[in-house]
Amino acid sequence: MPTDYETGLGRNAANYVPLSPLSFLRRTASVYPERPAIIHGPIRRNYAELSERCLRLASALAQRGVGRGDTVAIIAPNIPEFVEAHFGVPMAGAVLNSINTRLDADAIAFILRHGEAKVFFVDRELSAVAAEALAMLETKPLVIDINDPLATGGALIGEMEYEAFIAAGDPGFTPLMPLDEWDAIALNYTSGTTGDPKGVVSHHRGAYLNAIGNGVTWAMPHFPVYLWTLPMFHCNGWCFPWTITALAGTHVCLRRVEGTAILTAIAEHGVTHLCGAPIVMSMMVNAPEEVSRAFAQPVSMMTAGAAPPASVIGAMEAMDFKITHVYGLTEVYGPCVVCAWHPEWNDLPANDQARLKARQGVPYELQEDMIVADPVSLAPVPSDGVTIGEIMMRGNVMMKGYLKNPATTEASFKGGWFHTGDLAVMHPDGYVEIKDRSKDIIISGGENISSIEVEDALFAHPDILSAAVVAMPDEKWGETPCAFVELKPGAHLVEEAVIDWCRERLARFKCPRRVVFTELPKTSTGKIQKFVLREQARALASSAG
Amino acid sequence: MPTDYETGLGRNAANYVPLSPLSFLRRTASVYPERPAIIHGPIRRNYAELSERCLRLASALAQRGVGRGDTVAIIAPNIPEFVEAHFGVPMAGAVLNSINTRLDADAIAFILRHGEAKVFFVDRELSAVAAEALAMLETKPLVIDINDPLATGGALIGEMEYEAFIAAGDPGFTPLMPLDEWDAIALNYTSGTTGDPKGVVSHHRGAYLNAIGNGVTWAMPHFPVYLWTLPMFHCNGWCFPWTITALAGTHVCLRRVEGTAILTAIAEHGVTHLCGAPIVMSMMVNAPEEVSRAFAQPVSMMTAGAAPPASVIGAMEAMDFKITHVYGLTEVYGPCVVCAWHPEWNDLPANDQARLKARQGVPYELQEDMIVADPVSLAPVPSDGVTIGEIMMRGNVMMKGYLKNPATTEASFKGGWFHTGDLAVMHPDGYVEIKDRSKDIIISGGENISSIEVEDALFAHPDILSAAVVAMPDEKWGETPCAFVELKPGAHLVEEAVIDWCRERLARFKCPRRVVFTELPKTSTGKIQKFVLREQARALASSAG
Repeated sequence: MPTDYETGLGRNAANYVPLSPLSFLRRTASVYPERPAIIHGPIRRNYAELSERCLRLASALAQRGVGRGDTVAIIAPNIPEFVEAHFGVPMAGAVLNSINTRLDADAIAFILRHGEAKVFFVDRELSAVAAEALAMLETKPLVIDINDPLATGGALIGEMEYEAFIAAGDPGFTPLMPLDEWDAIALNYTSGTTGDPKGVVSHHRGAYLNAIGNGVTWAMPHFPVYLWTLPMFHCNGWCFPWTITALAGTHVCLRRVEGTAILTAIAEHGVTHLCGAPIVMSMMVNAPEEVSRAFAQPVSMMTAGAAPPASVIGAMEAMDFKITHVYGLTEVYGPCVVCAWHPEWNDLPANDQARLKARQGVPYELQEDMIVADPVSLAPVPSDGVTIGEIMMRGNVMMKGYLKNPATTEASFKGGWFHTGDLAVMHPDGYVEIKDRSKDIIISGGENISSIEVEDALFAHPDILSAAVVAMPDEKWGETPCAFVELKPGAHLVEEAVIDWCRERLARFKCPRRVVFTELPKTSTGKIQKFVLREQARALASSAG
Repeated sequence: MPTDYETGLGRNAANYVPLSPLSFLRRTASVYPERPAIIHGPIRRNYAELSERCLRLASALAQRGVGRGDTVAIIAPNIPEFVEAHFGVPMAGAVLNSINTRLDADAIAFILRHGEAKVFFVDRELSAVAAEALAMLETKPLVIDINDPLATGGALIGEMEYEAFIAAGDPGFTPLMPLDEWDAIALNYTSGTTGDPKGVVSHHRGAYLNAIGNGVTWAMPHFPVYLWTLPMFHCNGWCFPWTITALAGTHVCLRRVEGTAILTAIAEHGVTHLCGAPIVMSMMVNAPEEVSRAFAQPVSMMTAGAAPPASVIGAMEAMDFKITHVYGLTEVYGPCVVCAWHPEWNDLPANDQARLKARQGVPYELQEDMIVADPVSLAPVPSDGVTIGEIMMRGNVMMKGYLKNPATTEASFKGGWFHTGDLAVMHPDGYVEIKDRSKDIIISGGENISSIEVEDALFAHPDILSAAVVAMPDEKWGETPCAFVELKPGAHLVEEAVIDWCRERLARFKCPRRVVFTELPKTSTGKIQKFVLREQARALASSAG
């Protein structure tokens, strides 16, 4: 029986509006039409202009028959058109499918086919691989070329150019707001190490909450100046296209992520915030000295994808960067876990600070819950910092599920928790620390070895730029650790010296049996492709045997 | 027909959790258990302790049969128990009914009867009026005394004391989260000038969003130190009990709002944020010099309830307070409109800045929409800064409606907009400026006079502390302005001098015909009670006639 608090007190048009990040652009364009929205090379656009271009884009898509529930794909670096797509595509009622620029034609073709994109925006520099993928398709989308003046090379392969396409759109177009905040807003394929990519479907509600949550977790001010080092195709740039717009900030675009370009942009545009994997920090730390301190303002950087090495954090902080370590997955719209800092930790010795900062941490203010638990029973492990379990999450910043993949969707949500597949310990203070991705545990003689622990030891070596450790099959021990090491420019090391270095720091069974000096294969987001290294390790083992 | 983006991609326990501010306490108590949560006189409690007390409170309420949809009332100044009630009451599934401490027994009895409170928490200092109200009730709630050690006087009238009550509660109690984010969380009666008070019912979803929205609009950092000058009974302290907790900040309680006490607390506890009506600013500006600059940190203050006089803003800014002008109503959880500042406005002359800052402004980032429109046709007025219409709002920070009052609920939401009853103009830049509360327009000889405009002229006088202008009946003109003026200590003025002052600044028909020197009657939130003055003006007119 309804209570007095329910009778006649339902939702109506005045007191309930579906949450959508589209509201942010409308508000900022109305309140701050003159504030700088976009910087890209010589291009400057304010929020009135950005809004008009997004409305034209939405209108142009609608003119081509794109509507609610349709998919619109894009492959591009971090350029203004990509920011526009984050608003213009959902304003047409459609779902934005951002494609990883490092994928090969096969994978792109799979995504276009599986996602059923009706329109495909292609940056000129990426048109060769896009054309190759399109050639594999039975049903081809409408292809629109983005002919960015800062692009170099690449043919135009589409029906028309982006500028002509949106010029035909109506700037007075009325955006289609979601009918339900659960409506899909984006489709992002995860680059699994095996099998076909999975299409993560996110919803307007989560995008809205995460866009705001970014600002809360990072304590962002009004008018941030945000440098686009994080790929926008990666979990919708972790929702920052929407966050920065909500805060009336400036999007500083960047086609190529490279140390000098980053530091120059920070100085030139007064950048206050950026995100990126630890590899981006390494680029900045190793940039030429004349650009490394050419800016005056403090800069906040969020880093994810791997625990940042203490040495890199130290070098960044010396350059007046404030580093926040976050963790997440595509399924939760990017990071939703933060190593929330306690002010009193600033008084600890540097080593202790580094140890604390390497932990993934606690849920964002706007994420609901996280446990480390037994994957089958869902019983939480003891908060002892030792017992390993699987990280599980629940909350509103969480995908609807995987597109056309009910079995995997159901399995991933089993028991009312999202199963991340990441293995971690829960510390007594409630902070989570990843010990390994499920597949990355090395089991040697019945003992578990965390590849991260071995990598930490390698990172501490002054001559080592980057390192990755994987399992190498071994007849006696089952598996042994095999290290792949990238040296700093000009450095020289031999295998034995590296193993000796580790033996000084690690239990003997944890030390690499083999060390390979090589450039590490990385994904576009800076994650090391361990599956490639695992194959190399297998080959090494069989050739040795 | 469901699309691929819907099939098998519904809400489940892992990806959908009802939004509720109760999540904030759980998170902060988990991440920052040791951080200071409450300061009250000699009392210091951290978040672990605050959380435990809230859980005990919820458990104790449940033990007494309080559950989902029940009402729990409280009458108290800004003390720790009031913060606890904001969590403990909804944790029991119940609805928090905060009662204005300035109300008389009749009004309190009406509220307790209408809201059907099952439990009533009474601060000792307010027990006399509470007892008087309780004596009028046929069905009495369980009365619990809050015996604050800082209270002076007052008898204990309840069945038991608060500390004993919660001591019986179980700190391991499992909070009842809302079954639906639309569930009621609070009941606040608006003090209408005529008729019975209306019971505004707010929901968990709006409370969550507004708690976060406060932080976004005010660009609040982590760990704010918040001084409780704003009454907590007023729109749930505008949701700041939840905001400050979400940001792991410190609640600095304050029984009595008074200039020296405020400034002393700011210095002693490193207060960073506070809210209050302009009258609170006046108290601070007029506090003794030895306390007025005894603090080092910059302090942010939100002010609402009336446009702040330029002279007061100037004096506050000279004391290193950063003033943000906001506007709202109980129906929208307090302020949801802000005079969003443009950095370039800092370069304007002081007069222009004051004129801009006096405007109510634009919707908060997390409020959806606002128009100034014809109350019948809902057609927006031109954005010309001249044409007067009614402010209407829609969004998620909006009440469910009025309790047991379907006719008024329906009327207030007519046409899909909430009708505020406030009259305003829309400026060309999209900023709203209130010209008068509906009842406060003075119509003289067919011309509309905004009482605010006349009051602004009076406020500019160096000897005038406060002023209010209302309509006085007039046989010839229908109405004429009558001014009630409060002088600064030691100042002397005669009626004619005040009228002359106005004539130099206003069109003749707008100038007061009568000036009364008196202390202005104010509500507990610092709003001047114009209905009292209107009666006085009517009496003056008839005695003159």
